[in-house]
Amino acid sequence: MFSPLIEDLIRALRCLPGVGPKSAQRMAMYLLEKDRDAAGLLASSLQQAVEKVGRCTRCRTLTEQEICALCNNSRRDHALLCVVETPADVLAIEQAGNYHGLYFVLHGHLSPIDGVGPADIGLDVLGERLGERQQGDEQEGSAIKELIIATNPTVEGEATAQFIAERARAKGIAVSRIAHGVPIGGELEYIDGGTLAHAFNSRTVL
Amino acid sequence: MFSPLIEDLIRALRCLPGVGPKSAQRMAMYLLEKDRDAAGLLASSLQQAVEKVGRCTRCRTLTEQEICALCNNSRRDHALLCVVETPADVLAIEQAGNYHGLYFVLHGHLSPIDGVGPADIGLDVLGERLGERQQGDEQEGSAIKELIIATNPTVEGEATAQFIAERARAKGIAVSRIAHGVPIGGELEYIDGGTLAHAFNSRTVL
Repeated sequence: MFSPLIEDLIRALRCLPGVGPKSAQRMAMYLLEKDRDAAGLLASSLQQAVEKVGRCTRCRTLTEQEICALCNNSRRDHALLCVVETPADVLAIEQAGNYHGLYFVLHGHLSPIDGVGPADIGLDVLGERLGERQQGDEQEGSAIKELIIATNPTVEGEATAQFIAERARAKGIAVSRIAHGVPIGGELEYIDGGTLAHAFNSRTVL
Repeated sequence: MFSPLIEDLIRALRCLPGVGPKSAQRMAMYLLEKDRDAAGLLASSLQQAVEKVGRCTRCRTLTEQEICALCNNSRRDHALLCVVETPADVLAIEQAGNYHGLYFVLHGHLSPIDGVGPADIGLDVLGERLGERQQGDEQEGSAIKELIIATNPTVEGEATAQFIAERARAKGIAVSRIAHGVPIGGELEYIDGGTLAHAFNSRTVL
């Protein structure tokens, strides 16, 4: 219906998450009709990001630098390490604003059925990291004092958490898991059964 | 929070209609984490479209060709011309599938308050088009027998329709306006008052 280049653009826009045929068409029309500068800028941003963004060699988050800004920040607590599944999780925790340690990004979770093993989610890199000692402090054990596991509360996320916890404990590092339960501000009436059951099982003494 | 290139990408994605900060972030993460090929393809499609897509010299719709596929199609009825506001309107009418004439795209509507005059919406081009005669048929008047006005039923759209209608009638061309009223399959209960009032005023004899 449209000319070939416009059809190509609409098809390419459909690869974006949450964008169906109608939205893709609306986006293509908007970019071509109203804002070609923005379209050109988007094209070059995409090109740049695809070519240059890789993973931080320390924490595996997405960055175009060798070591990301968080790992390089000396004001963060380098004795705390939080394990998350995705770079978006890092952002969510940073936006909450009360964690001041470092991160380690798995880029997924253990899933033997899909052929995702420990090496695929960087557990070899994490193992080395946990084995690192503080400079000039050969006897004190790992530079990491506490490993906080914040994988998602799904079956695979829990299995991944257990797997990492065992390995870290074997190295004598304290391991914790973030709390799961009723969200703050949530009303019990609208909370799903699984979450409520977990909240009861994980109740704390007052 | 993210590295500069990723921040740039998120900012660029926000220019898309209907994409807020959260969606833009989700899109950027998806493209970089899961589908870099698609991101590269999107970048090149955008670049190509921005550079090459212009307007059809006959109907002003978006195309990278000199004359678009619709205007070039000899199987369409070249005596019917439908005036619409945007290229997306052309698609909507084509998808309905019962119109077989040609189109003329205004790329907007008359809006003196925004400084949009007749020349800005191509009414000079439309005027020439209506003045064209069939080849070898000097006495028969315009090659266009009927002008169907399908601008949107807004204040500006109606004003534009009236303006075009007067000019076309002056050239002796039959002018019509598509019907507005209760949508087929619509329930009266859920139709807005303005549409219902219009439907009563424009009732047809049975």
